Amino acid sequence: MKLSKVDLSFQSCTSSYDEADVVIYSVPMDATTSFRPGTRFAGNAIRVDSFGVEWYSPYRDADLKDFKTVDTGDLDLPIGAVEDALDIVYEATKTVIKDGKKPMVIGGEHLITYPVLKALHEKYNDLHVIHLDAHTDLREEFFGRELSHATFMRQAHKFLGDHKIFQFGIRSGDKHEFEWAKKHIHQQKFDFEGLDKIVEQIKDKPVYITIDLDVLDPAVFPGTGTPEPGGMQYKDLLWAFDQFEKLNHIVGADIVELSPYLDPSGASNAVAAKSLRELILILHKNKNK
Amino acid sequence: MKLSKVDLSFQSCTSSYDEADVVIYSVPMDATTSFRPGTRFAGNAIRVDSFGVEWYSPYRDADLKDFKTVDTGDLDLPIGAVEDALDIVYEATKTVIKDGKKPMVIGGEHLITYPVLKALHEKYNDLHVIHLDAHTDLREEFFGRELSHATFMRQAHKFLGDHKIFQFGIRSGDKHEFEWAKKHIHQQKFDFEGLDKIVEQIKDKPVYITIDLDVLDPAVFPGTGTPEPGGMQYKDLLWAFDQFEKLNHIVGADIVELSPYLDPSGASNAVAAKSLRELILILHKNKNK
Amino acid sequence: MKLSKVDLSFQSCTSSYDEADVVIYSVPMDATTSFRPGTRFAGNAIRVDSFGVEWYSPYRDADLKDFKTVDTGDLDLPIGAVEDALDIVYEATKTVIKDGKKPMVIGGEHLITYPVLKALHEKYNDLHVIHLDAHTDLREEFFGRELSHATFMRQAHKFLGDHKIFQFGIRSGDKHEFEWAKKHIHQQKFDFEGLDKIVEQIKDKPVYITIDLDVLDPAVFPGTGTPEPGGMQYKDLLWAFDQFEKLNHIVGADIVELSPYLDPSGASNAVAAKSLRELILILHKNKNK
Amino acid sequence: MKLSKVDLSFQSCTSSYDEADVVIYSVPMDATTSFRPGTRFAGNAIRVDSFGVEWYSPYRDADLKDFKTVDTGDLDLPIGAVEDALDIVYEATKTVIKDGKKPMVIGGEHLITYPVLKALHEKYNDLHVIHLDAHTDLREEFFGRELSHATFMRQAHKFLGDHKIFQFGIRSGDKHEFEWAKKHIHQQKFDFEGLDKIVEQIKDKPVYITIDLDVLDPAVFPGTGTPEPGGMQYKDLLWAFDQFEKLNHIVGADIVELSPYLDPSGASNAVAAKSLRELILILHKNKNK
Amino acid sequence: MKLSKVDLSFQSCTSSYDEADVVIYSVPMDATTSFRPGTRFAGNAIRVDSFGVEWYSPYRDADLKDFKTVDTGDLDLPIGAVEDALDIVYEATKTVIKDGKKPMVIGGEHLITYPVLKALHEKYNDLHVIHLDAHTDLREEFFGRELSHATFMRQAHKFLGDHKIFQFGIRSGDKHEFEWAKKHIHQQKFDFEGLDKIVEQIKDKPVYITIDLDVLDPAVFPGTGTPEPGGMQYKDLLWAFDQFEKLNHIVGADIVELSPYLDPSGASNAVAAKSLRELILILHKNKNK
Amino acid sequence: MKLSKVDLSFQSCTSSYDEADVVIYSVPMDATTSFRPGTRFAGNAIRVDSFGVEWYSPYRDADLKDFKTVDTGDLDLPIGAVEDALDIVYEATKTVIKDGKKPMVIGGEHLITYPVLKALHEKYNDLHVIHLDAHTDLREEFFGRELSHATFMRQAHKFLGDHKIFQFGIRSGDKHEFEWAKKHIHQQKFDFEGLDKIVEQIKDKPVYITIDLDVLDPAVFPGTGTPEPGGMQYKDLLWAFDQFEKLNHIVGADIVELSPYLDPSGASNAVAAKSLRELILILHKNKNK
Repeated sequence: MKLSKVDLSFQSCTSSYDEADVVIYSVPMDATTSFRPGTRFAGNAIRVDSFGVEWYSPYRDADLKDFKTVDTGDLDLPIGAVEDALDIVYEATKTVIKDGKKPMVIGGEHLITYPVLKALHEKYNDLHVIHLDAHTDLREEFFGRELSHATFMRQAHKFLGDHKIFQFGIRSGDKHEFEWAKKHIHQQKFDFEGLDKIVEQIKDKPVYITIDLDVLDPAVFPGTGTPEPGGMQYKDLLWAFDQFEKLNHIVGADIVELSPYLDPSGASNAVAAKSLRELILILHKNKNK
Repeated sequence: MKLSKVDLSFQSCTSSYDEADVVIYSVPMDATTSFRPGTRFAGNAIRVDSFGVEWYSPYRDADLKDFKTVDTGDLDLPIGAVEDALDIVYEATKTVIKDGKKPMVIGGEHLITYPVLKALHEKYNDLHVIHLDAHTDLREEFFGRELSHATFMRQAHKFLGDHKIFQFGIRSGDKHEFEWAKKHIHQQKFDFEGLDKIVEQIKDKPVYITIDLDVLDPAVFPGTGTPEPGGMQYKDLLWAFDQFEKLNHIVGADIVELSPYLDPSGASNAVAAKSLRELILILHKNKNK
Repeated sequence: MKLSKVDLSFQSCTSSYDEADVVIYSVPMDATTSFRPGTRFAGNAIRVDSFGVEWYSPYRDADLKDFKTVDTGDLDLPIGAVEDALDIVYEATKTVIKDGKKPMVIGGEHLITYPVLKALHEKYNDLHVIHLDAHTDLREEFFGRELSHATFMRQAHKFLGDHKIFQFGIRSGDKHEFEWAKKHIHQQKFDFEGLDKIVEQIKDKPVYITIDLDVLDPAVFPGTGTPEPGGMQYKDLLWAFDQFEKLNHIVGADIVELSPYLDPSGASNAVAAKSLRELILILHKNKNK
Repeated sequence: MKLSKVDLSFQSCTSSYDEADVVIYSVPMDATTSFRPGTRFAGNAIRVDSFGVEWYSPYRDADLKDFKTVDTGDLDLPIGAVEDALDIVYEATKTVIKDGKKPMVIGGEHLITYPVLKALHEKYNDLHVIHLDAHTDLREEFFGRELSHATFMRQAHKFLGDHKIFQFGIRSGDKHEFEWAKKHIHQQKFDFEGLDKIVEQIKDKPVYITIDLDVLDPAVFPGTGTPEPGGMQYKDLLWAFDQFEKLNHIVGADIVELSPYLDPSGASNAVAAKSLRELILILHKNKNK
Repeated sequence: MKLSKVDLSFQSCTSSYDEADVVIYSVPMDATTSFRPGTRFAGNAIRVDSFGVEWYSPYRDADLKDFKTVDTGDLDLPIGAVEDALDIVYEATKTVIKDGKKPMVIGGEHLITYPVLKALHEKYNDLHVIHLDAHTDLREEFFGRELSHATFMRQAHKFLGDHKIFQFGIRSGDKHEFEWAKKHIHQQKFDFEGLDKIVEQIKDKPVYITIDLDVLDPAVFPGTGTPEPGGMQYKDLLWAFDQFEKLNHIVGADIVELSPYLDPSGASNAVAAKSLRELILILHKNKNK
Repeated sequence: MKLSKVDLSFQSCTSSYDEADVVIYSVPMDATTSFRPGTRFAGNAIRVDSFGVEWYSPYRDADLKDFKTVDTGDLDLPIGAVEDALDIVYEATKTVIKDGKKPMVIGGEHLITYPVLKALHEKYNDLHVIHLDAHTDLREEFFGRELSHATFMRQAHKFLGDHKIFQFGIRSGDKHEFEWAKKHIHQQKFDFEGLDKIVEQIKDKPVYITIDLDVLDPAVFPGTGTPEPGGMQYKDLLWAFDQFEKLNHIVGADIVELSPYLDPSGASNAVAAKSLRELILILHKNKNK
């Protein structure tokens, strides 16, 4: 018998960095979380519970083991230093892009999407973002800070520009956010209606997909810091994945805001793990287009 | 810096009693609960977790901070003395009515609605009640008692009279209750179908709204003593709120049967807190009609 | 006052064995569970929490107390000895059949259905099986074993034969299972579509119903070892029960895979207990046809 | 194979009522609980988890299966009617005494000890009570009621008389209770010191033992409504059991205040179940003296 | 009946700010927590659960209602901005000192003690600190930051000076911390031995008491971010409180590191609430010396 | 920035297999667990939560990073096949021994110690075993099986021989086990008394240390399948570690029976992780003797 070092990569994503086309990295950061923290533990919770996830997806008719994916684990972040942590996420993303691979990021709080977008935008000037979320995340500032989970998309808008952000499922925010959205971005309140048309419209653009899992109803995904009732069913998200598969140029994706300790049943981990499998497969299939 | 006494009012409902138009009070009572008790803790659980609720509702396009609401906390009840406790709820409600304000009550078990209805009926002889619930609550008696969570609406019928009670979402009870209901009240089994028509029909009547949150599916609201599968989604409840907004004369409302310890994820608290925000806004907007 | 031995039978199923038409027995076995074990505790968890279930079903307009049902509790199984345990389930089922009663089995893991089917098939050569599940359970082998929760239906196919198994709600498995299914069984992926037609088609055949409760979405039923997002709502299951009531010859039924410790809210226990009530009533009403 | 009705008696206490020397009954009552209710579920939680308890005690060198014990389950109590429920406990105890058996009672809240003492005192005029508890339970009244978990021992004193109550481990109460105790009862604050001497002193008296398990530190027994830090270790309780074994005339015993849902680890259930085994064995061995 | 605003002050600490001698404030900060965050919720959890705490302490023979204490609730802190948050704690403490009252602080993470010490040291140049903790908190820096829960006492040493810090119960840290401690502070590893002598030695000095509740064994206090087995029993802490009562000049105190969501039993809340009661009484009795 | 594969080795045990002196492997097996399963998840739970453990031990004055340890993760076991799984544990242990390294095993249920002992005994004919446990594990058979968690030490005795097994802390078993023990092994009931003398006695023998963490009181270690009240404090275990350090020839060690899901506070994980750190350091220091 041969013994070797423990490998707790996400289910069957056991390629080396060099051979991989898609790179998973998790960002253990919840520093600006205003209500209940804990998303820093999402990456490893998903890894450990991915044991319960099949490699094969009957939705995509595709199998993780037929693709090359590396899981690089949690980024090593300083505690309590928001800007420094964001720099590290930015650097990691730059590295992945430079090496010709696609980033598949696991949050952490939603702020971690900001440096990923910044890095991608430097390569793709015409970057479009599909953003599934319960919350607008469009505040000008939050508790006196420009960079927080509640402001990050407003800040990203500063370099992305008008009409590049496409929000769906939004059901919480303050009045100014909803009004600002009307002028600057595409925002679908409460559900995913029109997502198929938007996908058709931006089919050949470089698109980043960011999924705050709290877009799902807390029934489906209770393991999150700020549950917002009235959300989507998991079958709606599966339908959204079907739409994403039609895009021709996805440049990366993330899933954020799993807070595993908040759901002792483990069902939220299963939701995140299955979603990650689908997104990895979508990134790979997209590459082959 | 100035320090002052702790204020744990429900999210931004920080008016004084005198200036307020709507008065929140919670009733920490679960004395007749037959299965799993714990609803006595609902009021403060909602207060503490209301930190996670936005002041602004995109459903009502209205903001809590634009209205005057006071939160008076838990009523001070004797333990183990059902009748005495109900008297106190009755007296509190009488006070609120007398002072020209609207009661917004948080349970506790559903029996607490009985004294509220009694107090309101003394002012509004033509009182109508919209009752969302999984359970009929129409037993003639329960474990040998006339007043219990399982009987309260049958008892209230004695002063409300026939055809004043409108139940929706009912899916549990004994056979006699379902049969009695056919003759004396409006009862929609399993869902909210027809709620819009009933609202149209009683539009100008004095209406009290009582929401047993277990009308929701346990998926959406597991934090309740007697979960009854096969219930409503939160989007259905949001639709019901839209109907309520069309009423011209709402005289009060309650939400009952949150048992916070039963749902460690906190999602049930979020359901109750968001529902409370919507009901407060509906009460205020109704007043301005 | 008269005191007698404790009786923790499932809600009002307190007949003696001799007088009963339907026999409940639970199988405390989770020996081949690959991910999170704990289904061995399902039987007694359902018994204790059945206190929260009404005897009367408004869906069937029928009452448990109008029928003769015995609850015989957990079978006494050896720990860690899969084959020996399965033999005991087989013997218990043979006894129930021989005595002219209908088996109503509570899992445990899904493998426990295998010996039940084997015993029933010896009496009913034309046995048909309706199988609600998230998982295919059609592997040829699993971790080197022929008999496991992931293989049992493939093994049962060996005596049942082609086109006798009707799967619904399936959304997880490996590619070979899905392909094998196309040739040998009826398999509806993702939902219950067509269940009404199948029921019509096999109306007069001897039918066994096996319900892996993980066919439900983890939102509805988080208390299970391998939660698989994207499943059915409880109302869908109630609709399936309505279909089952149209069958003329149901020979037995089971519900499996409740793992009660995984859902601290108790909602999953309520789902299992209510489903058990419905199935018991369906078995009794079927008998009277 | 022979199938018969489910028997969920406490571990191996499966005698019939007629042949038994010790009678277990549980009292599912928590109606006057002032803080966190839930002790009504203790009886069945102990029954189900007694699977994890050995029949043999190395502390007593005795085995449950060598004695005749019946478990009669939960008494059937009206909900929300304190006096009626207490009457039923009283009647059950009278029956057990009349039939020449020893009562072994499981709470429920501590108030349930009151009717047990009342029934026993009618037979044993010189009844002595050893009372292990964190709380004095000596209030004259509580929330306006004479009979509550916080007053029951003061009320029992009215018929027991001075110097018949021996409290140990007390660490919570109001000032008046501590002062009253100095004159009327034996009260050892904070620990069990002197218990051996008291046992020696009342060795030949009729003695009832009432154990509020919250006398244990919350570390050992977190599953209780009002945890009071600074309590006893389980080894201290085992030492107390050793003392009890020296008594010549124990007339009954109870353990109260387990609230099983509050301790998801199940350790509190194990504490209650093991304590119950020890007390049953002590009652039986005492009888043989 | 008169209704007024909700008051969720800690048990019976309902004075106004002006009349109070002791001022409670809680600091909802866990920004530099390296492992499991959540201490931000401690203040309100203690407030709500203080319902289960008696006003009277048999340990101090004193009653909260005989003293004037105000509870000012959570300080209002910016999220994710460590320095700004610490400034607010500093300002609040300065205000309390200036107004001639004693600060009784509830954490939050242990870093919040730093600004409290800083403010107190400006008034009391000879400030001594008794520090109960599992962890040294003496790192020179931590994840690249000077101010964190793991460094705060080393930083405070810079203004307090040598031999002013008295640590007890320490059982975790890196080697350099233990070595640095030997030269600059008094450090008792593993237990409280010698605390009585230190109290005798610094009896007339201005003393601040900071209690990281993780000094207790995780058995006693599981509700904390970094449980460290091998700690103290609650009776040891009660003994320490007895020693503190002998001090003649206590200038303030804190208890930190309760993370309420981590202990679903609520026992950790009870530990914190009872400890707070004892410390409040010690502060008041000390004032009267 | 350089990205590489995720490494979730136990805290700082990141050597390669070849350079390591101590080899960690975990055995995800709970197949013969009679009460509550779940120990299969212990290995990865300890890995993930080892983030909260310092590298340095003030008890041993030693640091993990000064030694070469490899963590090889979970062994890959067949599900439901007890004998096959035990063979794999045996083979892994043989490999580690052959390669001149010391095995540091993480359970799983206690049965996994059997094949480890068997492999070690083949090299060390005079193998002595120190066994800390709540349970005797000395049954001749259990539920009809020779190999189970309740029998393994009796089976191991068959090759170890008389007077080679030294049990401490035992407090649960059936009468025959306790009597058998008197003749064949050293058994200290209830505590660790005499462990120091035994260590002195077998100082120069080859010794294996097996620690069933349920030897600890459930207060300290609730996260285990069969909690047995009346156990040891963690400080007792630390004292036992001090004794172990005096042994001259430790050939391996294990810690078993952590069931992480049963303790939502994570304190049991911390107990296991800290114990593992101590044992690793003891193994390394022993080697250097």
